[in-house]
Amino acid sequence: MSRLWDKGEPLERRVLEFTAGEDHALDNRLVPYDVRASIAHADMLAERGLLSEEHRRQIEDGLQALAREHAAGAWSVSLDEEDVHTALESRLTERAPEAGPRLHLGRSRNDQVLAALRLYMKDVCRDLHDGVIAVAESLDDLGDREADTALPGYTHLQPAMPSSVSLWSGGFASELRDDAKGLLACIRRADKNPLGSAAGYGVPALPIDREQTCRALGFASVHSPVTAVQLSRGKAEAQIVFEIHLLMTDLGRLAADLILFCTQEFSFVALPANMTTGSSIMPQKRNPDVFELIRGRTATSMACLTEILAVSSKLTSGYHRDLQLIKAPLFRAIDLARDVLGVLAEALPSVCFVPENIRMEQSLYATEDAYRMVLDEDMPFREAYRQVGRRYSGKD
Amino acid sequence: MSRLWDKGEPLERRVLEFTAGEDHALDNRLVPYDVRASIAHADMLAERGLLSEEHRRQIEDGLQALAREHAAGAWSVSLDEEDVHTALESRLTERAPEAGPRLHLGRSRNDQVLAALRLYMKDVCRDLHDGVIAVAESLDDLGDREADTALPGYTHLQPAMPSSVSLWSGGFASELRDDAKGLLACIRRADKNPLGSAAGYGVPALPIDREQTCRALGFASVHSPVTAVQLSRGKAEAQIVFEIHLLMTDLGRLAADLILFCTQEFSFVALPANMTTGSSIMPQKRNPDVFELIRGRTATSMACLTEILAVSSKLTSGYHRDLQLIKAPLFRAIDLARDVLGVLAEALPSVCFVPENIRMEQSLYATEDAYRMVLDEDMPFREAYRQVGRRYSGKD
Amino acid sequence: MSRLWDKGEPLERRVLEFTAGEDHALDNRLVPYDVRASIAHADMLAERGLLSEEHRRQIEDGLQALAREHAAGAWSVSLDEEDVHTALESRLTERAPEAGPRLHLGRSRNDQVLAALRLYMKDVCRDLHDGVIAVAESLDDLGDREADTALPGYTHLQPAMPSSVSLWSGGFASELRDDAKGLLACIRRADKNPLGSAAGYGVPALPIDREQTCRALGFASVHSPVTAVQLSRGKAEAQIVFEIHLLMTDLGRLAADLILFCTQEFSFVALPANMTTGSSIMPQKRNPDVFELIRGRTATSMACLTEILAVSSKLTSGYHRDLQLIKAPLFRAIDLARDVLGVLAEALPSVCFVPENIRMEQSLYATEDAYRMVLDEDMPFREAYRQVGRRYSGKD
Amino acid sequence: MSRLWDKGEPLERRVLEFTAGEDHALDNRLVPYDVRASIAHADMLAERGLLSEEHRRQIEDGLQALAREHAAGAWSVSLDEEDVHTALESRLTERAPEAGPRLHLGRSRNDQVLAALRLYMKDVCRDLHDGVIAVAESLDDLGDREADTALPGYTHLQPAMPSSVSLWSGGFASELRDDAKGLLACIRRADKNPLGSAAGYGVPALPIDREQTCRALGFASVHSPVTAVQLSRGKAEAQIVFEIHLLMTDLGRLAADLILFCTQEFSFVALPANMTTGSSIMPQKRNPDVFELIRGRTATSMACLTEILAVSSKLTSGYHRDLQLIKAPLFRAIDLARDVLGVLAEALPSVCFVPENIRMEQSLYATEDAYRMVLDEDMPFREAYRQVGRRYSGKD
Repeated sequence: MSRLWDKGEPLERRVLEFTAGEDHALDNRLVPYDVRASIAHADMLAERGLLSEEHRRQIEDGLQALAREHAAGAWSVSLDEEDVHTALESRLTERAPEAGPRLHLGRSRNDQVLAALRLYMKDVCRDLHDGVIAVAESLDDLGDREADTALPGYTHLQPAMPSSVSLWSGGFASELRDDAKGLLACIRRADKNPLGSAAGYGVPALPIDREQTCRALGFASVHSPVTAVQLSRGKAEAQIVFEIHLLMTDLGRLAADLILFCTQEFSFVALPANMTTGSSIMPQKRNPDVFELIRGRTATSMACLTEILAVSSKLTSGYHRDLQLIKAPLFRAIDLARDVLGVLAEALPSVCFVPENIRMEQSLYATEDAYRMVLDEDMPFREAYRQVGRRYSGKD
Repeated sequence: MSRLWDKGEPLERRVLEFTAGEDHALDNRLVPYDVRASIAHADMLAERGLLSEEHRRQIEDGLQALAREHAAGAWSVSLDEEDVHTALESRLTERAPEAGPRLHLGRSRNDQVLAALRLYMKDVCRDLHDGVIAVAESLDDLGDREADTALPGYTHLQPAMPSSVSLWSGGFASELRDDAKGLLACIRRADKNPLGSAAGYGVPALPIDREQTCRALGFASVHSPVTAVQLSRGKAEAQIVFEIHLLMTDLGRLAADLILFCTQEFSFVALPANMTTGSSIMPQKRNPDVFELIRGRTATSMACLTEILAVSSKLTSGYHRDLQLIKAPLFRAIDLARDVLGVLAEALPSVCFVPENIRMEQSLYATEDAYRMVLDEDMPFREAYRQVGRRYSGKD
Repeated sequence: MSRLWDKGEPLERRVLEFTAGEDHALDNRLVPYDVRASIAHADMLAERGLLSEEHRRQIEDGLQALAREHAAGAWSVSLDEEDVHTALESRLTERAPEAGPRLHLGRSRNDQVLAALRLYMKDVCRDLHDGVIAVAESLDDLGDREADTALPGYTHLQPAMPSSVSLWSGGFASELRDDAKGLLACIRRADKNPLGSAAGYGVPALPIDREQTCRALGFASVHSPVTAVQLSRGKAEAQIVFEIHLLMTDLGRLAADLILFCTQEFSFVALPANMTTGSSIMPQKRNPDVFELIRGRTATSMACLTEILAVSSKLTSGYHRDLQLIKAPLFRAIDLARDVLGVLAEALPSVCFVPENIRMEQSLYATEDAYRMVLDEDMPFREAYRQVGRRYSGKD
Repeated sequence: MSRLWDKGEPLERRVLEFTAGEDHALDNRLVPYDVRASIAHADMLAERGLLSEEHRRQIEDGLQALAREHAAGAWSVSLDEEDVHTALESRLTERAPEAGPRLHLGRSRNDQVLAALRLYMKDVCRDLHDGVIAVAESLDDLGDREADTALPGYTHLQPAMPSSVSLWSGGFASELRDDAKGLLACIRRADKNPLGSAAGYGVPALPIDREQTCRALGFASVHSPVTAVQLSRGKAEAQIVFEIHLLMTDLGRLAADLILFCTQEFSFVALPANMTTGSSIMPQKRNPDVFELIRGRTATSMACLTEILAVSSKLTSGYHRDLQLIKAPLFRAIDLARDVLGVLAEALPSVCFVPENIRMEQSLYATEDAYRMVLDEDMPFREAYRQVGRRYSGKD
C-alpha cells in the first residue's frame, strides 16, 4: 500500500487532510460572503445587547480588512485553517483578541456556512443568467447576420421542411432564455436566512433576532423551523446544478449541430481558425475541439448533479459531515458553465454559414404541396398526404 | 440467441414491437388530453376556414365519445395502433370517414404529442402539489398530537441539542411545502403552446392561428420560434422528475428517521401493525417494510431523472425518435411519487412516539450552559465553550 | 389527492400493492430457477435426515409439475401471492399438505431469492454473450460483403485517414466481442451458493450442508461467511447491467454512425425499407427509427445501472427491504439488451453501403505523404509534417 | 458577464485554457508511463530501420533524464505545454534537436496517450487490489481481537438472529476480497497494446511492428483492428471506476454500520479520539467525521462513473476531443479510493467494541426454538414457525 499514498505523515495530519479535503482551496470564493454574513451577525448581537459596540466595531473593521487583503491576494485559506470560517475567526482573533472570540456566540458553523453559501449562490444565479442572455444575444446577432440564409429543417437527421439560419439560431436563443429564467428561479431556494438555526436546533437562552440578519443580508424570509435548515442542504445547490445541466445540454446540442455543419459532407459552416486546433499526426487537419469540449461537458454537469443528489439521499435528519461534499461539485458545475458561456460568447460572432453549400431540395416542400392540394381541392389531408407520398416514393 | 427472444414472429411485427415499445400502454393516460388538444385544433381549423362546421362537429362529437368510452374501459390503445394519436384518429375516421382524415391538417405528431403531454404535466404538477401538502398536513397533525414529546436533536447522529417531535415533524413539513412549491414552479416550462410548430419547422401555406389554440387550451404563451419546441423536449419533463426526486429524497430521509426510531435500541416510535410485515424464517419479527421501500424509491426517482436527461443530451437539433423514450421514465416517476404520497398519508396518522423511551440527557444542554456563562459573566463565547468542553470531557 | 390515486381500496390491499409492487409480475421468469433451487434444498434436507424420502419425493414431483404448468401458461404469480416463493410454496402445500410446510426448513426468503436470481443471472450472461457474438458475426459478414468499399476514417468527425467498411465493421465487431467477454466475466459474482446463509446469519441447530446444494446447483463456491451474502446484493446485478451498458454504448455508437451515414449529405448507406418508418406530416420521409431507438436505449441502460447502485448505497449491513427494488431495473436492462440485439441481428444483413457516394479525397493521404518524405529523404517527422501541413493549408 | 470570468486575457490564451483544461496538471502522473511507452516505440522504430541507433540512444537517455528530473520535482507539465506528450517531446527536442523530432514517427497522440494511460491503469489496479487486501486483513484482525464478542444480527435494522463481531467483520472482509478480485479483473480491458493504431486508422507506408511494442510494454495482446482502439476509450476506465464504486459502496456501508454502532443509543463501539472531531458550537460533542466522509464519498465515485460513461455515449466512431474529459473523473476516483483505503487502514486497528453494551435478547433465538421443535417433534417448519410466532407476539 505504501507506494501510492504513504507520505510518511503523522496520523493527525492525514486525518486532517482527509476530513478537510479540498475545502480550504474551495472556500476562498466564500471569503467576501462569510465576511458579510459575519458582520450582519455581529450587528445583530450588538443590537440585542450580546456584544458591546466597541467589540462590534473591531469585528467589522477586522473582517473588512481581512476581506480586502484576501481580495488583494495577501492571504488565502490554508489546510491548517480547514475552512473559511476558521480562517476568518482565527485571523480576526489575532488582530482583535478580545472581540474575535465573541463572534461565534449564537451561531454554529452549520448555519454560518449556509449563510455564506446562499449569498454566493444568489450572486451566481444572477451572473449565470446574465452570461446566458449574452450568448442568446450572440445567437440573435448570428440570426440577423445570416437573415437570408436558408437551411433544411431536419427531423431524424433527414431533411424535412424548409428552415433558415435565423430559425435555427432563434430556437436555441429561445431555449437559452428559458434556461436563464430557470437559473433565476433557483434563487427561491437559496433565499432563506439560515442564521439562527445554529447546529440545526436553534439557539437556546440567547435573545437572538433572525429577522434582523434576514433583512440585513437581503434574504426573502427566515428559514424555519430551525430543523428545516439542515434538511434543506443540497436542494438549492442541486437545483442550480440541474439548471446548469439543462443549459449545458442546450449548449451541447448547439455544439453538436455546429460540429455536424462543419463536416466536409455538410460544409454548411466555416469555423474561425482560432476555434479549431491541429492534429499531432495529420498535417491537413483542423478540428472543432472547442465545440467538442462544450458537448463533452454535458457529462461533467450531469456528474456534478448526480454527486450532489447522492450525498444527501437516505441520510437521517440533522447535520452529517457527508454534506460537506456538496460544495465541490457545486463549484465545479458553476465554473464549467462560466467557462463554456465565456468561450461561446467569443466563438459565436465568428461562426459563418456558407450559403453556396446549402442545398434546399424539392422534397423539403412536400408538406406544402400536400397543403396546397387540400386548399385547392378541399381534399382531406390524409388523402393529399397519400398522393404526395406516392409521388415522392416514385410509385406515382 | 433464439432461446431468449425468438418468438417466431415476422420481422415487421418485431420491428413494430421494438419501435412502438410500451407506448401504447403508456399512452392510455393521455387519451383525455389528446382529445382536448385535438378538439382545440379542430376548432381553430374551422375558425380559419380550413374545416367545415359540419366536419368540426363530427370531430368534436366523435372524439368526446371516444374519450367517454375510453374512460369507461370500453377500449384502450393497442400495440397495432402504436400510440394514442393513431388510435384516436383511426377510430375517429371509422366513425366519421369524411371528417377524420381532415383532423391532422396543419399539425404533426411532434406538436400533437407535446400538446397532450404538457396538458397532462400541468395537471400532474397541481395534483402532486396537493398530495405533498396533504402529507405536510399529516406531519403538522403529528406535531400537534405529540406537542409535549421531547426529542434529542442529533448532528452526526450524536445527541447535540434539545429538540422535540414537533420540531422534527415541522422541519419535514416545511421542506415538503418547499417541494410542493418546486412542483408548481415546473408548470412554467410546460405552459407553452406547442401546436402550430408541427414537425418543428412550422406550418407552411396554411393560415393557422397558434394564439387561438393557446387560449383554448389555457397555455400561458405560444412556444416560439417553432424551432424551440423540439429543442425543449425533455426539459419540462426533467424538471418535474427533478422536483419529484427532491421530494422523494425528503420522504426517504423521513423514512430513514422512522426506521432508526423504530430500532429496538432507539425505540422512540411504535409503528402501526398494518405498516409492518413479518419474516419467512424468524417468527418474532415485525419489519418496517413500507418505510424501507419509501427510502429505496429514492433510487428509482434518481434513475428516472438520469434516463430523461440522458435521452436528449448531445442530440443535434430537431426531432429524433430517441425522444420518445422520455415518456416511460416520466410516467414511472410520477406514479411512484403518487404511490409513496398515498401510502404515507395513510401511515403517518398512526405513527406513535413513546416518550418513556426518549432520554434527554444532560449533555444536550452543554451549549445552553456555555451561553449562560457568557450571559452571566460576559465571558467570550470561545472561553465559555472551552470551559464547558473540559467539564464534559471529564478533564475538568 | 383522491383524484390521482384513491381507488377506494382498503388499507391492507394498498399496503400490499405498495410493498409487493410489481414483484409478482417480474417473478414469473424466476419460476424454473426457484423450482430447481428448492429441489436441491429438499434433496439436501433429505440427505441430512431433515426430510423423509417420501416428503422429498412429493416436493420434487409437486414442484416439477408446477414448473411445467407455469411454462405451459396454466398459472402465473398473482399479486396476492406477492412473489414466486410464496406462490410456489403455497401451491405446493395445496397439493402436498404434509410435505409442503416442511420445505422452508433451514432457509429464508433472503437466501432463497438469491439462489434463484443467481441461477437466472448465470443463464442470462451466457445467453447475452451468445447474442452479442451473433451480432459481431453479422458485422463480420457485412465487412466481407463490403470488402472492397473504402471509407474515410474520421477524427473529430473530420476526414482524417483512409479506412474501409471492413475496418469500420471490424472495429465494432472487436469491441462487441470484448463486451461479450465482459458479460461472461460477470458470472464470477453470481457463481456463489447463497443457500444456507438464510436471513444472513446462517442456520442454527440444524445440520445443513451448504456444499451439497452448491454442487447440486453448479455454483463455483459456497458464499461465506454467511454475513457476506446480503452485503453482496446488487453487486453481481450491477456488474451485469454495467456490462450491458458498455454493450449498449457500443451499439448506440454503431447506430449513431449509421444514422449519420444515412443522412442525405453523407448518403454512404441505404437502409432497408423495413427498418425505416414514415412521418405523420411529411409524405416524403423515411426515418431510421430503429437505429435512433437503439441509440436512445443507452439512456435506459444507464438509468438501470444508476438505480441498482443507488439502492444499496449507504445501507447498514444485513437485509433491508429496499434491496427488493434491484430486481426491476435488472430485468429491464436484460430485456432491453435482448431486444436490441434481436433487432440488430435482423437489421444488419440488409444494411448496404453505396460506394459511388463515398469520396476518398486527397487530404486523407497527407500523413502517408509525410511518411514517404521521411522514408525518402530521412527527414525528421516533425519537419515532414510541417512541410505537408503548409501544402494543405495553401500556405505553400 | 465580465465579473465572473473576464480575466482580460487574449482570446488564444482563453481558448487554450478551455481546451487544455486541467490536463497539464493531471498529466504529471503519466510522465513515467509516457516515457516508458515512448522508449518502447523508439526501440521499435530503430529495430525496423526507421530510426538510427544514435538517435534512439539520444531519445532513450533524454527521456530517462526527464523522467528522473520530473520525479525529483525539477519540472512539471505546464499549461503552455498542454499535456504530458507535448511536454516530453518538446523538452526532449531541446536537448536532442536532431533526434527529438523523429520520435513521433508512426504514432499519434491518440495511441500515445492510451499507451501511457493503460500502463498506468494496470499499475493502479494492482495497487488498489493490495490496498483493499490490507483493509480486509485489518478486518480479519478486528474479528480476531473481538473473537468473543457477540452481536445481534439485524434484518430491516431489527434484531433477527445471533451474530458476532467476527461474523460482522468477516462479511465485510469477504466482500472486500471480492472487490479486490474485481479490480484485478479490470486489467483485461487495459491490457491491449494501442500503439500502432495511431489516430485510429493505423500507420500507412511505414513497416512498424505492433507486436514488438506489445511485448516490450508487457501488454497481453495487440488491440486490433486499429479501429477498435478509439471505440474502446472509456471502457477500461469505466470498469475501474465501476469496481471502485462497488468498493466504495462496501466501505460506505461499513462506515454506516460504525456510525450507527457509535450512537449513544447503540453504544456498541468506541471510536478512537483521533478519528473523531469536535463541534464549533457544542462543547460536549465528538463526531465520527472520518466515517461520515467515507460514506459520503460513495456519491463521488458514483459521479465519476456517471461522467466517464456519459462522455463516450452516442458519439460516432473515431476519436473526438470529448474523450479527453475521461481522464479527470478517472483520476479523481482512483485518488479517492486510495485516500479512503489509507485512512481506513489507520482507523480500523483502533476500533473497539464494548461488549457490556451489547444485549443479546431472547427473541434472537426464536428461529432456533422453532428448529428445535422441528427436530424434537418432527413438526413441519411452518407449524413450528406459527407456534413460536404466537409465543413472541404474546398471543400464546
